[in-house]
Amino acid sequence: MEIREKICASLSVIKEKSPLIHHITNYVTVNDCANIVLAIGGSPVMADDLEEVAEMVGFASALVLNIGTLNSRTIESMLIAGLKAKELGIPVILDPVGVGATKLRTKTAEKLIRQIKPEVIRGNMSEIKVLAGLEVAIKGVDSLADEQDSSVVAKKLASEFGSIIAITGKTDVISDGLNVCFLENGHKILADVTGTGCMTTSLVGTFCGVTKDYFTAAAAGIISMGLAGEIAQASLRQGEGIGTFRVRLMDSIYNLTPEILAKEGKIFYE
Amino acid sequence: MEIREKICASLSVIKEKSPLIHHITNYVTVNDCANIVLAIGGSPVMADDLEEVAEMVGFASALVLNIGTLNSRTIESMLIAGLKAKELGIPVILDPVGVGATKLRTKTAEKLIRQIKPEVIRGNMSEIKVLAGLEVAIKGVDSLADEQDSSVVAKKLASEFGSIIAITGKTDVISDGLNVCFLENGHKILADVTGTGCMTTSLVGTFCGVTKDYFTAAAAGIISMGLAGEIAQASLRQGEGIGTFRVRLMDSIYNLTPEILAKEGKIFYE
Amino acid sequence: MEIREKICASLSVIKEKSPLIHHITNYVTVNDCANIVLAIGGSPVMADDLEEVAEMVGFASALVLNIGTLNSRTIESMLIAGLKAKELGIPVILDPVGVGATKLRTKTAEKLIRQIKPEVIRGNMSEIKVLAGLEVAIKGVDSLADEQDSSVVAKKLASEFGSIIAITGKTDVISDGLNVCFLENGHKILADVTGTGCMTTSLVGTFCGVTKDYFTAAAAGIISMGLAGEIAQASLRQGEGIGTFRVRLMDSIYNLTPEILAKEGKIFYE
Repeated sequence: MEIREKICASLSVIKEKSPLIHHITNYVTVNDCANIVLAIGGSPVMADDLEEVAEMVGFASALVLNIGTLNSRTIESMLIAGLKAKELGIPVILDPVGVGATKLRTKTAEKLIRQIKPEVIRGNMSEIKVLAGLEVAIKGVDSLADEQDSSVVAKKLASEFGSIIAITGKTDVISDGLNVCFLENGHKILADVTGTGCMTTSLVGTFCGVTKDYFTAAAAGIISMGLAGEIAQASLRQGEGIGTFRVRLMDSIYNLTPEILAKEGKIFYE
Repeated sequence: MEIREKICASLSVIKEKSPLIHHITNYVTVNDCANIVLAIGGSPVMADDLEEVAEMVGFASALVLNIGTLNSRTIESMLIAGLKAKELGIPVILDPVGVGATKLRTKTAEKLIRQIKPEVIRGNMSEIKVLAGLEVAIKGVDSLADEQDSSVVAKKLASEFGSIIAITGKTDVISDGLNVCFLENGHKILADVTGTGCMTTSLVGTFCGVTKDYFTAAAAGIISMGLAGEIAQASLRQGEGIGTFRVRLMDSIYNLTPEILAKEGKIFYE
Repeated sequence: MEIREKICASLSVIKEKSPLIHHITNYVTVNDCANIVLAIGGSPVMADDLEEVAEMVGFASALVLNIGTLNSRTIESMLIAGLKAKELGIPVILDPVGVGATKLRTKTAEKLIRQIKPEVIRGNMSEIKVLAGLEVAIKGVDSLADEQDSSVVAKKLASEFGSIIAITGKTDVISDGLNVCFLENGHKILADVTGTGCMTTSLVGTFCGVTKDYFTAAAAGIISMGLAGEIAQASLRQGEGIGTFRVRLMDSIYNLTPEILAKEGKIFYE
């Protein structure tokens, strides 16, 4: 089965099975992440207390770890939940938000990767370059890095970590260490709204909840967001902006069908 | 006065007095809860630090406790605020989000109920069954339980706890241990948006802030949300989904009047 | 250059330079604050862990401290980040949400002001009166105080603290201890949405990120929000309310231009 067909099939399974996606995530975009998981057909649960995360993740089909507003309490919860997930064969998706900006973020991301070995790591070019030990200019949590050598970086890092590496940007790149694919959906207005990266990771997590083919799941989540962004942007009229765009983005994910994905998804192989 | 008239009268009082509703709640839906309280005419305040909750609740007309993202720090704050509220005669409304999913949630909900004796407990059928000690399948924080014997469960639990029990679902059921009423407003799309349960609890809390008749207050909050959901859903056009629905839901609560409640509210007694 | 021209010029600089605005803020309105900073052209970052705030603020052009849901952990982070900001010459903007409602809030606001000396303090009349040691009726976090002597209070407090004092209300007042200006944009529906105060502070912070003239920056942030509120409100049709208003508010900030500010901004001097 070709990747495009697999993506479409996965979307149907999400809508049928409504996989539970456990998040330990940041308080800035947590509501958006919960709603995007619901919009695509999954079932989100956010729980981060040390005393309950191992138990909660046992019900889940995937675990999303997002370090956007990490603190000492939630870092420990991420480790415990992540280790439990691995023990149970539940896929872990890491969003290393702002890694490289502070030592705490870099140290935490590295620790989570080393100890948990996430199935998928999704970040922007700056974040992934930091994980790859490459030099990069950092400003807060947004990417400044150019995307020129993204496929080389993704492939190398995927091979080194044994994780799917997904770099989102103008062109998105995904690698499992052997294969590389490029995704060309999306619109630059997505960068004008907070949480579109986090939401993309949550969508990747939702797809990981219904297939063991995490390369396809990563592509599916990213392409869903890109396509929804295009549809939402195209709907904007004079005087509308990111307020309306966010609403339509959620609408577009809610109305996404396997048919739209098959027809409009732009996937290329190296 | 019939319950329908009492609900309408309470809505007028909210708009006139703007009761302050203190919340200790989860970080996923907290913004929605604040806005829904404002939309109906109340005044929300969110404060959860141990050092200030007892003082803050002293200004409030009702206290909403929601365990959606509980942790050791906020559990203690809920206890302190709850006990202070009871001491001052301020009603406490508990939303036992996800009780049964983890031991921490079950233990915490039971502790809050035992020590504080909330005036109203609002949950879905799974959550209320867990509190009633009945067997139930759990998946995260959403309900899987069937609603067949909801009125029996509500009545029994209300009698046992001395609280108003409100079970929301396709048909909502409220009992004070003696009386049972059923509410038939709402639309299934409400379950596709995160926080509609939490927001319902916040609306119940707002009505509890203006009447000592907590049975009526519970009915009023739930029927307001159900009716707003119907209005919002009916307004959706081709291509719109949960993004637009959420916006219109807030609009519909904002524009809710005693007249609409009186005309469209569907309340039945056993 | 007249203040109106300076405001317009600052907006252009924001759109060109996209200043990074570090927030340590509350979890109720944090998403709105991030999106409003993006909407006007800035780049938000939210980070509150003790271990990283000093490092993160080093990348920032301004630091916004908001005590809306303060706790012992974040209070310490605010102090550390604030002191580091001062050391580096980065402006600090304080939003003393709910000061006066509880001893913890009053004590914390006073401590932050004494130790950090924020460049700008923005609050409603009740909050500013509390800081000025004046008597005021408190109910939660919203203002009950009348605005009669606002310019006197602002001037006196600005002089005493060495900070720009900005009081928002029906008429907004800004003083640096010598000069006083009044802003007349806005609409009362802004008070029906949670976070419009917090967002205003974030806008002030964004302007402080591009000019050392903090009096102008405070005026610019407040006038931007007031004007966007007017535009959003004027767009509402029958059946629309705060749901739609919030969306259009974000759209209006996104589409704000120096030309609109110059034409529609209502600024007066004492």
